[in-house]
Amino acid sequence: MEKQFIFEQITEMWNNHIPFNSLLGFTITQMTEEYAEIQFDWQDKLMGNPIQKILHGGVTASVLDMVGGVVISANLIGRINKPDKKKIADKLSKFCTIDLRTDYLRPGKGKSFVATARIIRHGSKVAVARMELHNEKGEHIAFGTGTYMV
Amino acid sequence: MEKQFIFEQITEMWNNHIPFNSLLGFTITQMTEEYAEIQFDWQDKLMGNPIQKILHGGVTASVLDMVGGVVISANLIGRINKPDKKKIADKLSKFCTIDLRTDYLRPGKGKSFVATARIIRHGSKVAVARMELHNEKGEHIAFGTGTYMV
Amino acid sequence: MEKQFIFEQITEMWNNHIPFNSLLGFTITQMTEEYAEIQFDWQDKLMGNPIQKILHGGVTASVLDMVGGVVISANLIGRINKPDKKKIADKLSKFCTIDLRTDYLRPGKGKSFVATARIIRHGSKVAVARMELHNEKGEHIAFGTGTYMV
Amino acid sequence: MEKQFIFEQITEMWNNHIPFNSLLGFTITQMTEEYAEIQFDWQDKLMGNPIQKILHGGVTASVLDMVGGVVISANLIGRINKPDKKKIADKLSKFCTIDLRTDYLRPGKGKSFVATARIIRHGSKVAVARMELHNEKGEHIAFGTGTYMV
Repeated sequence: MEKQFIFEQITEMWNNHIPFNSLLGFTITQMTEEYAEIQFDWQDKLMGNPIQKILHGGVTASVLDMVGGVVISANLIGRINKPDKKKIADKLSKFCTIDLRTDYLRPGKGKSFVATARIIRHGSKVAVARMELHNEKGEHIAFGTGTYMV
Repeated sequence: MEKQFIFEQITEMWNNHIPFNSLLGFTITQMTEEYAEIQFDWQDKLMGNPIQKILHGGVTASVLDMVGGVVISANLIGRINKPDKKKIADKLSKFCTIDLRTDYLRPGKGKSFVATARIIRHGSKVAVARMELHNEKGEHIAFGTGTYMV
Repeated sequence: MEKQFIFEQITEMWNNHIPFNSLLGFTITQMTEEYAEIQFDWQDKLMGNPIQKILHGGVTASVLDMVGGVVISANLIGRINKPDKKKIADKLSKFCTIDLRTDYLRPGKGKSFVATARIIRHGSKVAVARMELHNEKGEHIAFGTGTYMV
Repeated sequence: MEKQFIFEQITEMWNNHIPFNSLLGFTITQMTEEYAEIQFDWQDKLMGNPIQKILHGGVTASVLDMVGGVVISANLIGRINKPDKKKIADKLSKFCTIDLRTDYLRPGKGKSFVATARIIRHGSKVAVARMELHNEKGEHIAFGTGTYMV
């Protein structure tokens, strides 16, 4: 299988069949071996503070965790020799987040948001990604660092 | 106002009027100046991994952020001299999470979950809480550390 | 070899042959599979702030990283079947810190200090320890969480 | 006083009168309101692992904590209206690290090292910096994030 085709299939699956992502409205819009992107729109149900009308801190942590996981999964898959369904499923079955740090820089205000991730450590056991969250005005809302078992 | 009465009112408000907490089914069950507790039940929409049927890492981060915020809010309010609505609203208006670290120890499996928080640093500018997540069997699912602006 | 004997030998080696530990005066005083302890005395060279006469934040991070590494090493060795020098050296050769979080609770004042560590996650690839630093009065100076590759 | 002159004086003081920095051979080589840099050379006493001949993880954490503190101090001082010795001393007297996260990407091998820091959050109570450590070949050894009380 072509890598690009694999990433499209996984994107389609994760966008539609991970209940919590659907609940929050997360859509993976880029998935490559070094970079990933998730977009989502403001919805009142994502509100953590009704007075200030800002994102719940948990929404921010959730999207950062997710987008970091997307880029690291893509990287893992990209390194499989002659990938097929079984090899991919095997690889991803061990994948999990070990720890996640979220730094909240500004209140989560906006109409739409984009979370991005880049890999900073590739490894055979552990991988690390750095993530960012911006709103539609380009305001930087949060930073994240995620360590994942691979 | 009596502190206990204030905490009950805030608990009632946060349990019913923070949209994201309602969406996830979080219920504050204890709020004191040193300790707080949130309970929630498994719901399919909280699933991060349909194959393994476990909590999305973002749900874990969300409840740890929230329960840490509850104990620190209670502590802040407890230190107000003759608290009234205005003083409490003033105090809480500045409150926000600065950073949050989540350590995932085990897959988030279970029928119901309890998140707990204790204060480890009281300060006039910054407070720190340590949080834990367990399931109904007492299995320890995650640890967290949250730093909050107060 | 008996585990207790192995731990004594490693303690002796690490106390005397890791240059940076000697420089800072760190002494491992307990090494078991679930718990470790390091002691050190105040020395002016450890000062980070000459006006306040307190430990440099880097000293605190160093001792927490070290004591977490001690308990996790002990745990790794404890799980080796019929341990011998080669097996132990193999096991420890892959060992390294992935990430370390230090929470500074109080200024590092004191005449002597004790750092302690407990394991919170055992794993075949990754282990996590929680660490604390207290002074001789029992004042709690810092918390730490370390994630280690094993 | 001119800002540039102030930064030179502080650099001189911190390079020569913080015992732990002298012990480790840290030299501040840049201090501006948005960016700071510290250089240091390999010395055997900084070794954490005699077999691999690499930096102790505590050295890495120490220099990242320090360089983050330098850029944030410069930023604080830069925002003082008509700075004088008293105002600067007052401002810096409250300054301390709240928490520090270090991500170890590669073994700390090299002849000389440079740690850099940029501010990612300016605030009236709390500031956050992101730090990096590279060796003389440009290899990226570690990342850090520090949260400071200001």
